[in-house]
Amino acid sequence: MEKEKAVVLLSGGLDSATSLAIAFKKGYEVLPLTIDYGQRHKWEIDCSKKLIQYYNLNHHKIVELDLASIGGSALTDKFDIPKNRHIDDMSSEIPITYVPARNTIFLSIALGYAEVKKAQHIYMGVNVLDYSGYPDCRPEFIKSFETLANLATKVSVENKIRFKIHTPLIQMTKKEIIKKGCELGVDYSLTHTCYDPNSIGDPCGCCDACMLRLKGFKDAGLKDPLNYSSEL
Amino acid sequence: MEKEKAVVLLSGGLDSATSLAIAFKKGYEVLPLTIDYGQRHKWEIDCSKKLIQYYNLNHHKIVELDLASIGGSALTDKFDIPKNRHIDDMSSEIPITYVPARNTIFLSIALGYAEVKKAQHIYMGVNVLDYSGYPDCRPEFIKSFETLANLATKVSVENKIRFKIHTPLIQMTKKEIIKKGCELGVDYSLTHTCYDPNSIGDPCGCCDACMLRLKGFKDAGLKDPLNYSSEL
Repeated sequence: MEKEKAVVLLSGGLDSATSLAIAFKKGYEVLPLTIDYGQRHKWEIDCSKKLIQYYNLNHHKIVELDLASIGGSALTDKFDIPKNRHIDDMSSEIPITYVPARNTIFLSIALGYAEVKKAQHIYMGVNVLDYSGYPDCRPEFIKSFETLANLATKVSVENKIRFKIHTPLIQMTKKEIIKKGCELGVDYSLTHTCYDPNSIGDPCGCCDACMLRLKGFKDAGLKDPLNYSSEL
Repeated sequence: MEKEKAVVLLSGGLDSATSLAIAFKKGYEVLPLTIDYGQRHKWEIDCSKKLIQYYNLNHHKIVELDLASIGGSALTDKFDIPKNRHIDDMSSEIPITYVPARNTIFLSIALGYAEVKKAQHIYMGVNVLDYSGYPDCRPEFIKSFETLANLATKVSVENKIRFKIHTPLIQMTKKEIIKKGCELGVDYSLTHTCYDPNSIGDPCGCCDACMLRLKGFKDAGLKDPLNYSSEL
């Protein structure tokens, strides 16, 4: 029997690498999709390529989108990235690393790719618990996108295909995500999380993303395999 | 009092040019947005630039998105464009010029741009009557996107800003659109509609888009100012 297909949004970060491993485990034919959107941390794209090699996949769709030309985010503009914030402070407001409508745009492109490839499933590694600031990581957003997807496409209208958006990490803590990924054999040395790496790609260890990652590994009783540029 | 802002999706086609004129007439500060998505008819992009000059606007955001890499449409791939179809046959099925999830992707990018520019309004020149084949031109799709937009963004969550998606042409015939545009002073010689222009950009006159346009002008009792490559 032919496997069902799943488009997996793969940034090269810890969460999307775990989401990819979960889609594999579920038995889907995995179609990884990376959006090169002009993010400052191009190391993410490199990591997504390394993950593709690790999983021995022979197809990796990278779509270029010039979101930097729209701006409005510390991830595409020249804003300063906040450093050394306490984790409890991170969820009090939406951070400047928010990219306007990013997940709406990513899911839309994934939907187009899924339709072309006859895939009914889309995986996205969003997570609402550890970092609740992003509006487009919430379950109500994902549910609303799924409703939209099933009105938007030729296959949903003509063939009654129902798209399903999978967000297996949405209610997990970073600790739980890391434990799950390790169970599934994810090589986290191939992932990239930092918002502000140094010139050779080493993570800073003190931006919000690094601090959440490091706390996740610590809580899981594991060592993060990455080399951090500063002593921690 | 400061004008309210409206992002206007501008393809350079007849419909989006009319939608732009309507947004002006309503008194918005207009922010035109063109998506260069690798469409075969690059003449559209040129027309969007001419329209910007015509309206004496000093800002025009063009966002590049490599949708051709996803494929699946006659507008980005090397499929043959259907010619000389009877207008009654056009609505019987979704045509191969359908671009998977295009309007979902375009509205998502417009939403990101609107959020950055503090605009609450988005205009899109979709139309359901003349060419009912496209699922992402239907009112239920637009309504669903508006719901999504108001869950997706920082400003909708933090500041209770409500985005409004305007589709003033959605229930109009091509004849009505052209009459409305002429009333508002749209110079249709600056617009481009054809799916398959010749090497110097002249429209073919026999693809679905040309035939609908020509019928619209005829029904409105007006002459299309474009030079067609074939005798009609």
